[in-house]
Amino acid sequence: MKKLLLLILCSIPLLSLAQNHTQPYLNLEEAKRIVDAAEERALQDNWNVVIAILDGGGHLIYLRKMDGTQIGSVEVAQAKAKSAVFFKRPTKVFEDLVNAGNTRILSLPNAVAVEGGIPIFKDGVCIGAIGVSGVTSAQDAIIAEAGLKAL
Amino acid sequence: MKKLLLLILCSIPLLSLAQNHTQPYLNLEEAKRIVDAAEERALQDNWNVVIAILDGGGHLIYLRKMDGTQIGSVEVAQAKAKSAVFFKRPTKVFEDLVNAGNTRILSLPNAVAVEGGIPIFKDGVCIGAIGVSGVTSAQDAIIAEAGLKAL
Amino acid sequence: MKKLLLLILCSIPLLSLAQNHTQPYLNLEEAKRIVDAAEERALQDNWNVVIAILDGGGHLIYLRKMDGTQIGSVEVAQAKAKSAVFFKRPTKVFEDLVNAGNTRILSLPNAVAVEGGIPIFKDGVCIGAIGVSGVTSAQDAIIAEAGLKAL
Amino acid sequence: MKKLLLLILCSIPLLSLAQNHTQPYLNLEEAKRIVDAAEERALQDNWNVVIAILDGGGHLIYLRKMDGTQIGSVEVAQAKAKSAVFFKRPTKVFEDLVNAGNTRILSLPNAVAVEGGIPIFKDGVCIGAIGVSGVTSAQDAIIAEAGLKAL
Repeated sequence: MKKLLLLILCSIPLLSLAQNHTQPYLNLEEAKRIVDAAEERALQDNWNVVIAILDGGGHLIYLRKMDGTQIGSVEVAQAKAKSAVFFKRPTKVFEDLVNAGNTRILSLPNAVAVEGGIPIFKDGVCIGAIGVSGVTSAQDAIIAEAGLKAL
Repeated sequence: MKKLLLLILCSIPLLSLAQNHTQPYLNLEEAKRIVDAAEERALQDNWNVVIAILDGGGHLIYLRKMDGTQIGSVEVAQAKAKSAVFFKRPTKVFEDLVNAGNTRILSLPNAVAVEGGIPIFKDGVCIGAIGVSGVTSAQDAIIAEAGLKAL
Repeated sequence: MKKLLLLILCSIPLLSLAQNHTQPYLNLEEAKRIVDAAEERALQDNWNVVIAILDGGGHLIYLRKMDGTQIGSVEVAQAKAKSAVFFKRPTKVFEDLVNAGNTRILSLPNAVAVEGGIPIFKDGVCIGAIGVSGVTSAQDAIIAEAGLKAL
Repeated sequence: MKKLLLLILCSIPLLSLAQNHTQPYLNLEEAKRIVDAAEERALQDNWNVVIAILDGGGHLIYLRKMDGTQIGSVEVAQAKAKSAVFFKRPTKVFEDLVNAGNTRILSLPNAVAVEGGIPIFKDGVCIGAIGVSGVTSAQDAIIAEAGLKAL
């Protein structure tokens, strides 16, 4: 029992260190799950898209391009995801702003104002993002949301 | 019978046109198979790598980053694959040239002189490439070759 | 006494040369002071921002990213400051123009049309700029102005 | 005592979650401390340098340019730090390779083969890097190491 107590005391600083100075991150298994669910949703309507998953630093960890998708979407999907993780908000927010006349947003580096990029949060930390491109931006967003539901 | 003959005669030019003027391409299903086999080989030795598959136009169609891989490998894996498809030869060829003193290769746009990028051919056409990065370049190449065996 | 006179006479051309042909510049100590004051203002409201100071040539001399600030702000803060020093005017000027319908501003290289970038003048010379990003653009500008008051 | 036991049991999954799915990161206070120590070392020898600190995703969180440092060093310091965090190794490793004839390294995206960039590790995770540029690369590295001792 004394050993147990010692264990508790020892684990407290480790635990608080973890709380204060570590943060969650997205792993490959989760990324796969998100992309699988997103692709499944796309297939339902025979939509061809590129699905990209970035980590919290904006680096690509998973990308899938469905056959027949326009090649421009490879970069667009990544740019949407990058915008989402760089600004911690869905690209829809920028799209709505621009649609409402706030075109000044277009001068911000890495800001994409087209729906289809959504950040992924865990414990209040932005751990990554999904970006989808290939069909209409509203449809891209439907696919992205379906992907995130699998997380 | 006459209609049939007419049909045959009409279809001949179309058919020959098709034969002369199409080219094979790499699809998502094949890309997945390659990446699965490459990842399986990497896991055998607990190697962490990024595996990227590009199509014949040099556009990314599949990418997977194994947990813990250095983030620099995301770009390097794609650069190796791009070099392989842009120059229709493994990056090993450039590496050997540079090792033999031909440093001038380093001034070529998109040429990567580090093993791990291999082009994919079908019927004499370069339909894409695989690029691997994360461990030593010789190990990256072993993983890339294991992936291509699955095709 | 004669020597003193000679010394004065000799130093006159040098002095006038100095007056005609030098320009003030921003040094590290001033940059630090600006950033300290800006950060202090941000902390008052628990705002997380990136604060960047550029010199008169548009080169970064100081940058601080407060914990939790969206990573997109690292580039945005520098872009705002760059716009301010490149065009010798606050980014608010471009924002107002774009808001008034002059979207053509968005096609200018290095022009950012979002508040938060302010040039720094001394003796009529633009010696640098501050750029702030992380909260709303109006709040970013409040922080930037607070920083400049310390100069 | 029972409550204590309950506490232990409850804390186990949290702890293991922290171990499996969170990772440490570099904060602004630590970055400041590193830069202060590095600048102090540089001042000892009247060396003028740029000191840059990146986070684990390769994003700038702190930069200081000492007065008189060549402007090229602003980018070089960041590039060295980026290379260190992207490849999880000091730029000295690439410098030594290139010096030994492995010039092929020069074709890798984001690889800098000049001393002065050092990654920062915590619990086996690369949480960032320091990059120094301004004097000789050996002196840049001395400054970088002095900075890291403060962590």
